Amino acid sequence: MVSLAATVNRAIIYSDPPTTATEIVELPIEKPGPGQVLVRLYMRTDKSTGQVGGHEGVGEVVEQGPGVTTPAIGAKVGIKYAADACLNCDNCLIGGETTCPSVKVSGYYTPGTFQQYVVSSATYVTPIPDGIELASAGPLMCGGMTVYTALKRSRTKLGDWVLISGAGGGLGHLGIQYAKAIGARVIALDHGSKRGLCEELGADAFVDFTKFGKDEDLKAEVWKISKNGVKTVLNCVSNNKSYSQAMGFLGFRGTLVCIGVPEVELLGISVGTMIQMEQTIFAIKAGNRQEAKECLDIAARGLVKTHYKLRAMDSLTDIFNEMEAGTITGRAVIDLR
Amino acid sequence: MVSLAATVNRAIIYSDPPTTATEIVELPIEKPGPGQVLVRLYMRTDKSTGQVGGHEGVGEVVEQGPGVTTPAIGAKVGIKYAADACLNCDNCLIGGETTCPSVKVSGYYTPGTFQQYVVSSATYVTPIPDGIELASAGPLMCGGMTVYTALKRSRTKLGDWVLISGAGGGLGHLGIQYAKAIGARVIALDHGSKRGLCEELGADAFVDFTKFGKDEDLKAEVWKISKNGVKTVLNCVSNNKSYSQAMGFLGFRGTLVCIGVPEVELLGISVGTMIQMEQTIFAIKAGNRQEAKECLDIAARGLVKTHYKLRAMDSLTDIFNEMEAGTITGRAVIDLR
Amino acid sequence: MVSLAATVNRAIIYSDPPTTATEIVELPIEKPGPGQVLVRLYMRTDKSTGQVGGHEGVGEVVEQGPGVTTPAIGAKVGIKYAADACLNCDNCLIGGETTCPSVKVSGYYTPGTFQQYVVSSATYVTPIPDGIELASAGPLMCGGMTVYTALKRSRTKLGDWVLISGAGGGLGHLGIQYAKAIGARVIALDHGSKRGLCEELGADAFVDFTKFGKDEDLKAEVWKISKNGVKTVLNCVSNNKSYSQAMGFLGFRGTLVCIGVPEVELLGISVGTMIQMEQTIFAIKAGNRQEAKECLDIAARGLVKTHYKLRAMDSLTDIFNEMEAGTITGRAVIDLR
Amino acid sequence: MVSLAATVNRAIIYSDPPTTATEIVELPIEKPGPGQVLVRLYMRTDKSTGQVGGHEGVGEVVEQGPGVTTPAIGAKVGIKYAADACLNCDNCLIGGETTCPSVKVSGYYTPGTFQQYVVSSATYVTPIPDGIELASAGPLMCGGMTVYTALKRSRTKLGDWVLISGAGGGLGHLGIQYAKAIGARVIALDHGSKRGLCEELGADAFVDFTKFGKDEDLKAEVWKISKNGVKTVLNCVSNNKSYSQAMGFLGFRGTLVCIGVPEVELLGISVGTMIQMEQTIFAIKAGNRQEAKECLDIAARGLVKTHYKLRAMDSLTDIFNEMEAGTITGRAVIDLR
Repeated sequence: MVSLAATVNRAIIYSDPPTTATEIVELPIEKPGPGQVLVRLYMRTDKSTGQVGGHEGVGEVVEQGPGVTTPAIGAKVGIKYAADACLNCDNCLIGGETTCPSVKVSGYYTPGTFQQYVVSSATYVTPIPDGIELASAGPLMCGGMTVYTALKRSRTKLGDWVLISGAGGGLGHLGIQYAKAIGARVIALDHGSKRGLCEELGADAFVDFTKFGKDEDLKAEVWKISKNGVKTVLNCVSNNKSYSQAMGFLGFRGTLVCIGVPEVELLGISVGTMIQMEQTIFAIKAGNRQEAKECLDIAARGLVKTHYKLRAMDSLTDIFNEMEAGTITGRAVIDLR
Repeated sequence: MVSLAATVNRAIIYSDPPTTATEIVELPIEKPGPGQVLVRLYMRTDKSTGQVGGHEGVGEVVEQGPGVTTPAIGAKVGIKYAADACLNCDNCLIGGETTCPSVKVSGYYTPGTFQQYVVSSATYVTPIPDGIELASAGPLMCGGMTVYTALKRSRTKLGDWVLISGAGGGLGHLGIQYAKAIGARVIALDHGSKRGLCEELGADAFVDFTKFGKDEDLKAEVWKISKNGVKTVLNCVSNNKSYSQAMGFLGFRGTLVCIGVPEVELLGISVGTMIQMEQTIFAIKAGNRQEAKECLDIAARGLVKTHYKLRAMDSLTDIFNEMEAGTITGRAVIDLR
Repeated sequence: MVSLAATVNRAIIYSDPPTTATEIVELPIEKPGPGQVLVRLYMRTDKSTGQVGGHEGVGEVVEQGPGVTTPAIGAKVGIKYAADACLNCDNCLIGGETTCPSVKVSGYYTPGTFQQYVVSSATYVTPIPDGIELASAGPLMCGGMTVYTALKRSRTKLGDWVLISGAGGGLGHLGIQYAKAIGARVIALDHGSKRGLCEELGADAFVDFTKFGKDEDLKAEVWKISKNGVKTVLNCVSNNKSYSQAMGFLGFRGTLVCIGVPEVELLGISVGTMIQMEQTIFAIKAGNRQEAKECLDIAARGLVKTHYKLRAMDSLTDIFNEMEAGTITGRAVIDLR
Repeated sequence: MVSLAATVNRAIIYSDPPTTATEIVELPIEKPGPGQVLVRLYMRTDKSTGQVGGHEGVGEVVEQGPGVTTPAIGAKVGIKYAADACLNCDNCLIGGETTCPSVKVSGYYTPGTFQQYVVSSATYVTPIPDGIELASAGPLMCGGMTVYTALKRSRTKLGDWVLISGAGGGLGHLGIQYAKAIGARVIALDHGSKRGLCEELGADAFVDFTKFGKDEDLKAEVWKISKNGVKTVLNCVSNNKSYSQAMGFLGFRGTLVCIGVPEVELLGISVGTMIQMEQTIFAIKAGNRQEAKECLDIAARGLVKTHYKLRAMDSLTDIFNEMEAGTITGRAVIDLR
């Protein structure tokens, strides 16, 4: 357990936005208020190539605010994309915690996210089960639970074909494993350099999108593999081209799940084709506490493993630069110890 | 019962496409093959202002093909958008009969739809229950079952707000009634001339779109009425403007159901907003035999009544012209007797 | 608003259990702790003939504990069967709040339920919407939300036949109205004296069980009305006979929802028949915060009205005696003002 | 392909019921009527120890009746528990084909089931996909699809605990594999002699019921393994003791699926416990064409393998005797070639 004698909270701040320059500073440690706990973060992951920004960390409870009895001091907990929600509004009551009007997002540009100590609501941190190492758990707290939730809400089931675009990335490589865990069949779509990882994780087929000059040819390849088009597309990347191709992969009653935010403001969809095929598009925003718990439980059983590389606190600027260059595979995890 | 001595089948054909000119001709009456029945059509509805073309008729079985025992001679039956499907392919097995690769569509431009006699599969015609008059049943066989199916598959439930665009039209005015039957709350959106019908049918609010110059104002009005945006939009019209406005009406986890085919090839949607609100878009193509049966049963209980005007066979050209001018309210039903 | 100058909490206690004797005493008013509110109860309902004990009250927030900002002072709120739950355990996370291991039941025999002031968790009291009078809202906080939840979880839908046993009682008469609100068809089963109320509330058929000497005859009557047996049985009464008859009313894929606790320890069911008919039995325990909110919203729209009689605090012993004699119709509501 | 020159249909008949004595006779080969096909059966499985009677066979289409174009001559097809259904009644329309009023059951005591040639409806035989050997496919046509359907309808999902009673038997050993294929966790309950097979098939835990004298001890063991009780019990055996123990294994919102018909007429269940735990009991009767197809597709992917022993036609009496003695492991398959 971390000594409470620690009085300094080392944090990473942006020194010159919008450049990627960062520096490490020392901040005071906040006290947890009523219903809150103070968490000593060990690991902090960051977004990797080709996907929506992750907001996730894992650590250990080091202090309880007034009235808090659980989680206990020393308990391993995760901080999610949503750091807190009211749990009582219309949205929270039906599991839409990330869309709660008073949600607190563990934000990218919000002071306090890249630091050693964070104060959070005792009812909102997620207990980390035994059987999963902390560095592996970190990327599940946003990326992992997002792809898990996408699969769950899409009602993808045993035997269905799932196409994952950005399959070798931070979200995608977890998506492959969750899809395999429910017995689905996976087409991994990514740059050829990711083939090895995707196949190792169990993808039934790998498609290198760089080999297909025309969208029609890429679509034909997907239909050839899946015979009737796929049931589900998990679009883990943000580029417009990927989104505009995605609908073409879907078969009868297929579903596109929007995870990555496309750069373009408006995506063009063919309603006529959707009607002919009775297709669906839906979007999710991370997931709620229950979905986080399920996502971790599955990983704790050994069915899902994060592919990550541990990096030092002072390498954040480097990581940002590598991300922009597209040279990171899997997830970069920052060691905050 | 109709005399089998009849030997002539009066039918309406297009005399000079793509104009609306039509003429009535006399054709021989086809014999039903194995597994088929010959149906004497009494009523034939047509598409009315602002909605997808309907393909629907009701009549009476006058002859059974070899091996057919049900429906009985004299039974009242309906002909749907899908005239037949294999009932055995991947799509049919999960209720997607209208998307069966061998589906036979009771087509607009297919010879044989505007006629007094039609041959159909004995297992595919829909029995008309007692308690519903034939002219009222006709428009349910495509328009009615489509809006019913849209509501059912959207999981709209007691208390949810539903916005119906084209609420006073052939599909829309039935949609109001099905939505009210499940206890939903309805915002009827249409031209002011339809206010009376919509309110009479139970709409909780009527919005005259002609009063709102800007999309933002129209959206604001819908949000003012529904407080948190609507749960479901049934888009019964085909124009692009209606589709581009529709997403703005939706609240958290709202769903747009695409019924009418928009004129534009690609509809622009904001994936970013969909993610922020966890929204859904899905499309349906009419509905299957079970949905047709449920739709009729509800009407037979008196919960849904078609608003229609009976017209003569030789008025079809007039009807087409009125449709283009947007002067038809509700459904035009052609009397084929 | 109630004056905070009040210093006395009048409460009803059992003076000589297990007899029905009660007396009114004066107790000190408790202070709300962190996250709690103090509620001045106006109405307190009690179980009426033939159903499971209700635990329900409505009142007004008169004081907020430390850290509480909502509900506001003066807000009308309801106290449910479950007075509080952790909102964070395995059960709570999937909406099973009433089965939370640390649930606090607004108990029958728990000190503090029959009183003017009660302290409750700010996140667990249910806001009472405008448009519903307090005395009518009270019985919805346990009885109403239980039958509503039963219908919702049973997936009963537009057009389905629902049989309600004990249809004229506290739960049953609300069940009729919720079933009608979703467009279901209702067979009300009760003693003939309840026929008037049941028919007035919209039951499609009333069956007086006292007219049928043999279970087979009663079953035959239900099948005659529903043609294929009913889809759902809401068993709102506790006696064994009612439970043993219930399964016989169900048709193909019918569902028995257990609400009332039968007196007998073990109920005998025919698994063979269940297999032949693919039937279901399931049980619910009141409902959660979301279901309470939905249940109230529907009533606030005027679709459900409580049939009750307002009684004075000192009439509780009388009420108990009348209940045992089976002479109460609808719900008895105690005025605590 | 089998020569159509064959003119004799060798069949097994009961020579002296109710004893297990059988004999082989030669019967004429029936001609397929309109919409029918003649199937040359190769394999015929039989019920094995401790489970409901199976009715299943696989073979090859050797002749098409008038009007039949699919399945093609030479196509491999399966005969299910339900040999035919109308596909058009209330039950069939919602997938309840086995409960169709005019269902034809491939019966145990119906002449024609233990034979080389059988006539069946072209739309009702199930195509056998490539990648699965015929002898392995046979037991899926009733036993396999029943346990698959049980899991599917119970909504058991990734991570849930499933207890299978009779886990080493004909249905149970397939149930283990289907449960593992969707990522569930399996407790296999059976006699110790079945431990090896169950563990080899992937059961997470094996419980030998013969080691537990008292039901409470057995229940305690199951709760120790699953921590919170199981989510689903698949009761594949028919004895009363198993049924009376089953409810005790279930945790919060757990579901008992009744597959085997218990010997006792009425099973005693505690409604009080069901309410406390919000539990469910439901029953299924085999499954429909879609479920058969899904069940086969999963096996064709190699996720499920039948454990069987091929036996000669003249060994049926022996098989019956072994079944009564409880000495058969897995499924006995009769070679009809």
